[in-house]
Amino acid sequence: MTELEKQGAAAKDAAYTLAVAGTERKNAALLAIADALEARAADWLAANAEDVAAARKNGMTDALLDRLTLTEARVRGVADGARQVAALPDPVGTVVSSVTRPNGLQIERVRVPLGVIGIIYEARPNVTVDAAALCLKAGNACILRGGREAFASNRCAVEIMRNALRAVSLPEDSVALVQDTSRASAKELMELTEYLDVLIPRGGAGLIRSVAAAAKVPVIRTGEGVCHIYIDRAANLEMGAEILYNAKCSRPSVCNAAECVLVHADVLEAFWEKAAPLLAQKRVRLRADAAALRVLGAAAEAAADADWDAEYGDYILAVKTVESLDEALAFIRAHGTGHSEAIVTEDAASAERFLNEVDAAAVYVNASTRFTDGGEFGMGAEIGISTQKLHARGPMGLEEMCSWKYLVRGNGQVR
Amino acid sequence: MTELEKQGAAAKDAAYTLAVAGTERKNAALLAIADALEARAADWLAANAEDVAAARKNGMTDALLDRLTLTEARVRGVADGARQVAALPDPVGTVVSSVTRPNGLQIERVRVPLGVIGIIYEARPNVTVDAAALCLKAGNACILRGGREAFASNRCAVEIMRNALRAVSLPEDSVALVQDTSRASAKELMELTEYLDVLIPRGGAGLIRSVAAAAKVPVIRTGEGVCHIYIDRAANLEMGAEILYNAKCSRPSVCNAAECVLVHADVLEAFWEKAAPLLAQKRVRLRADAAALRVLGAAAEAAADADWDAEYGDYILAVKTVESLDEALAFIRAHGTGHSEAIVTEDAASAERFLNEVDAAAVYVNASTRFTDGGEFGMGAEIGISTQKLHARGPMGLEEMCSWKYLVRGNGQVR
Repeated sequence: MTELEKQGAAAKDAAYTLAVAGTERKNAALLAIADALEARAADWLAANAEDVAAARKNGMTDALLDRLTLTEARVRGVADGARQVAALPDPVGTVVSSVTRPNGLQIERVRVPLGVIGIIYEARPNVTVDAAALCLKAGNACILRGGREAFASNRCAVEIMRNALRAVSLPEDSVALVQDTSRASAKELMELTEYLDVLIPRGGAGLIRSVAAAAKVPVIRTGEGVCHIYIDRAANLEMGAEILYNAKCSRPSVCNAAECVLVHADVLEAFWEKAAPLLAQKRVRLRADAAALRVLGAAAEAAADADWDAEYGDYILAVKTVESLDEALAFIRAHGTGHSEAIVTEDAASAERFLNEVDAAAVYVNASTRFTDGGEFGMGAEIGISTQKLHARGPMGLEEMCSWKYLVRGNGQVR
Repeated sequence: MTELEKQGAAAKDAAYTLAVAGTERKNAALLAIADALEARAADWLAANAEDVAAARKNGMTDALLDRLTLTEARVRGVADGARQVAALPDPVGTVVSSVTRPNGLQIERVRVPLGVIGIIYEARPNVTVDAAALCLKAGNACILRGGREAFASNRCAVEIMRNALRAVSLPEDSVALVQDTSRASAKELMELTEYLDVLIPRGGAGLIRSVAAAAKVPVIRTGEGVCHIYIDRAANLEMGAEILYNAKCSRPSVCNAAECVLVHADVLEAFWEKAAPLLAQKRVRLRADAAALRVLGAAAEAAADADWDAEYGDYILAVKTVESLDEALAFIRAHGTGHSEAIVTEDAASAERFLNEVDAAAVYVNASTRFTDGGEFGMGAEIGISTQKLHARGPMGLEEMCSWKYLVRGNGQVR
């Protein structure tokens, strides 16, 4: 057995215990983890300082360094995150449906954990705890593989979590960290079908795609977002400009931010009169098609083909003019990633067509795509936003980190 | 583009239309398919006769020949199956949940089709229509790849179905058949990630495992069943014997049939006194451990290690004696396939432990495992019994052939 297979087998054993551990013990573990992270903040910060120093030496960019770096405030934030997960309702054991059949069999469909979840992510030490806490609450064991630049931080965090688990008499192997940060170990994790029930990559589009392409374990694709705002001919243009501004500028780096606006030709000038000054406040660079360029002039540059599929994650916006709702729908179908799509319109028939025909996790009428989020949807924390259709679609909260089983009670029925 | 990529692209286009086609048109298509299959039964039977003649010449076994062969009665059965699917409730468009958030956003979670489903199966022409009908009802396009020994039958059935679709103005590419029956084309289908949302292998364990190992498209594993009946020390032994007899003998070839019985040592003799004569009626061969052999004598033979993991699909039964419920649970965990497991007991505490701790799609108290079936569970027809935890577990009916999307209605909300 390789090291990783041993971790897999231990995680699978732990998962059997976690599956029946009950809400109280799982919550006790989460609170113990939160307390221990704060009590041992100095250790965690010291380990993180090692990572940061090495990364700086190796020329890591400032943006990535910022995501790698822990501070006392961030440690408190991570600990509070674990406490918030403890406060969420436990999905495990919920009776999803129940029926008594004519032959007297009582059939209940009950939520149960998935089992063992693998998480592959980048050099963000907070994800180590956030992901483990969510897995734990839903009764799942997890095997974590974070970016190697954060290895010292992750090792320390996982050791703290394993100690806390032991302290409340839950198996420490409920949370495991891949010790080997080579590419070979990532590949081995992606092929660990005997022990992993699912693999969730968290991070940029490059990471997601490479994991989805290489994995033999079932993968849930998350966070690929080329989201559109369509300004219909019947739009309230003021509202449209506000929604676009929010969807683009409130947090451009996240996956539910808008990357492209589609504007109906009939309202082209009137819309940009309202929208351009707003976007200019944040110096948003506009990459526009010819029709929009004529209106926007020097405020925009010409779009290239690649702009229609770009996930900028930045203050850049692709701008496309369309002649009809049909053209907008076809464009979204060709260029969307199935994440979040919005129409701004006062025309109820157009709104309903958009809702029905757009094939995406979340489809909006007269609201910003930025709401696609577990918290905003009322499901508490989320492990990611799924852009696939199998198992989970959209924000993936605790319920989506579960499977179900059928419990059947009889009194001697045979068939 | 390869032929298969063209079929994939066409199926994806068709899926967009099917997704919004509405219940009436889908039902009209199913009824048209049923009528056309009966009207053109002579064509289908002639094509099938070609397949059967070739297969016989190539030395196909009688059991496989029986599954390959169509008769007038079987054609009527297949057509009636399509009519029954038409009569089932349409899962698409169902509002699964709905919430109005404090900010006024109305969020509905609505069932939508998965998209394009690939089905890989053996030389059983009836599956061609059964699978296509279920896909169609749930709004999914399908790409079918049946065993090459049934190719002429399948080509004829698919042509009949495509004509029927056209007749009701639905896209004929909603149902496609892979034209190349080589291994290379199977591999290409298993890697058609751009067009397939999921791949469902239907058939024996060998087929399922090879598809799961080779596919890049997400696979739903179905139908692997090493199911156990555990006769507890507190069992009603008469009931236990009847349940075991039913689970083993009512249809030994199917995946929900029992392959192994676990008997508590305290009731070993008393149980076998009741069960052995029943099983002997069907000449069930018993492969027993040492303790059971002492009781069963010449009626059994000694089990080998391989018997504990065997899916016989036949009148053979592995027999294991256990000292406790704990031992039974550990044995099932080591040897079960997560399909269906049953305890026979009058002890409520043991029953609840078994229900909670056994990790399987369906867990039974005092009933036969043979009930794990879409029809028996009240969900109508099924495409298979999933033994995995992701997306669908247990009988996979029309609802499980769907995904969902979130429809969000606002009046200008920004975040």
